Amino acid sequence: MHTVFYVSDGTAITAEVFGHAVLSQFPLPFEQITFPFVEDEEKARAIRDRINDSFHQSGKRPLVFHTIIDDKLRNIIIDSEAMCYDFLNTFVAPIEQQLGVKAEPSAHKAHSISNKHNYDLRIDAVNYALDNDDGVTTKEYDEADIILVGVSRCGKTPTSLYLALQFGIRVANYPFIDQDMKQVSLPPALKANRHKLFGLTIDAGRLQEIRQRRRADSRYAAIEQCRYELDQVARLFRMEAIPFIDTTFHSVEEISVKILERTGIRRRIY
Amino acid sequence: MHTVFYVSDGTAITAEVFGHAVLSQFPLPFEQITFPFVEDEEKARAIRDRINDSFHQSGKRPLVFHTIIDDKLRNIIIDSEAMCYDFLNTFVAPIEQQLGVKAEPSAHKAHSISNKHNYDLRIDAVNYALDNDDGVTTKEYDEADIILVGVSRCGKTPTSLYLALQFGIRVANYPFIDQDMKQVSLPPALKANRHKLFGLTIDAGRLQEIRQRRRADSRYAAIEQCRYELDQVARLFRMEAIPFIDTTFHSVEEISVKILERTGIRRRIY
Repeated sequence: MHTVFYVSDGTAITAEVFGHAVLSQFPLPFEQITFPFVEDEEKARAIRDRINDSFHQSGKRPLVFHTIIDDKLRNIIIDSEAMCYDFLNTFVAPIEQQLGVKAEPSAHKAHSISNKHNYDLRIDAVNYALDNDDGVTTKEYDEADIILVGVSRCGKTPTSLYLALQFGIRVANYPFIDQDMKQVSLPPALKANRHKLFGLTIDAGRLQEIRQRRRADSRYAAIEQCRYELDQVARLFRMEAIPFIDTTFHSVEEISVKILERTGIRRRIY
Repeated sequence: MHTVFYVSDGTAITAEVFGHAVLSQFPLPFEQITFPFVEDEEKARAIRDRINDSFHQSGKRPLVFHTIIDDKLRNIIIDSEAMCYDFLNTFVAPIEQQLGVKAEPSAHKAHSISNKHNYDLRIDAVNYALDNDDGVTTKEYDEADIILVGVSRCGKTPTSLYLALQFGIRVANYPFIDQDMKQVSLPPALKANRHKLFGLTIDAGRLQEIRQRRRADSRYAAIEQCRYELDQVARLFRMEAIPFIDTTFHSVEEISVKILERTGIRRRIY
């Protein structure tokens, strides 16, 4: 198995995303190791030695995906016996030329707190999602960008949190409960905010599996109950013309981006 | 202002991370537009036209960061009048050569649900974080990977959620309350899990600002109260030898990665 190192003077999250995207195209398993916050030469040399050790022990040349702003530190890593991939510098020179502007590499790192306004927006959005999770209150729906609706455990909460953390969007979520489903009608707080509603649905078998892990062998987790709830909610979505997507085969990221695309809501943070 | 387009046949999250990292090195503002899920030629052509319109209207050549697996669709975008940057293909060929293995581009996309096991780990971790947020229960601390401790509003909850969503790590969080601080001692549930404790602290002025937004002009938000709580908790961290970091100047990503680095806890998802 090849060993892959992610090395950065910051969180290494960018290096990981870069490496994951490239490596996901190869049908191989990889041993993955991350070294974040490589901020001095001593640490850089220790990591270079660690990379070389991995090569000598396995006989397989490691891959290194790195994002290091400082030339000196970067050169220490590049000096290892690994294959080193540096997407930042590969693209900086052509973009400098295109823009007619010199890069100022020391100015920012991608995942630091450099923009406090954005940072507050994001934390406020996480607080909003938590305060308005699971229908605990409907009083703050005026401030919502989106209100996710659907049966219990169809993916509303993780989606709300992802939209908050990633894009700074304020997302409330409301689970349809027995009464809503019997009456096949929207409760008043939702009616008043109908234009903000977005539905999630899920395959009944998958829902049963998720609920079973949560509350084993309950009525709540019974397949008949899952089917009944999903059917009633599907009727409600149709009657009220609520846009919805099926979460069964989609990741939280995919669901979140599809919601942005369908609603046209602009992210508060880019 | 230059316009930047992120175009992908998936969520475009990878393209955005790629573009953000490169552009953060330039001291310029950018207008940013994302087109995810470009999965057919008609959509690709519409986006190519949109990109060209932007050029003709502004007179400034747009930048396009794209991650598109399908050659035909990619070629339609590349055919636009923008400067197009493609980090996937820039690195795939040299890595193919290095590994001696052909890429199988159709196999995976970076942010899809391709690995159900990982996906379940992640959703379970989010549920764990929510169930064990803010000290609501201490019964499940046996299952925690980490228990974050600190005063109210020092950053515990967003950090817990980020660690869950990004790395699948199970994080509980416990806010020190008046009684713990008066006694300067750990409650029994924390004592039993002392090796899992990790502290967060924050500058008193910043804490006041955050609490003020939450509960304006309360005793809770008074600077004296913030200082008192932070002092008591700092004593507790020292007495109990709890590792801690200051969140004042760090993003959620930085705090999360620093915790992983300091504790040596391995992520459940890479």
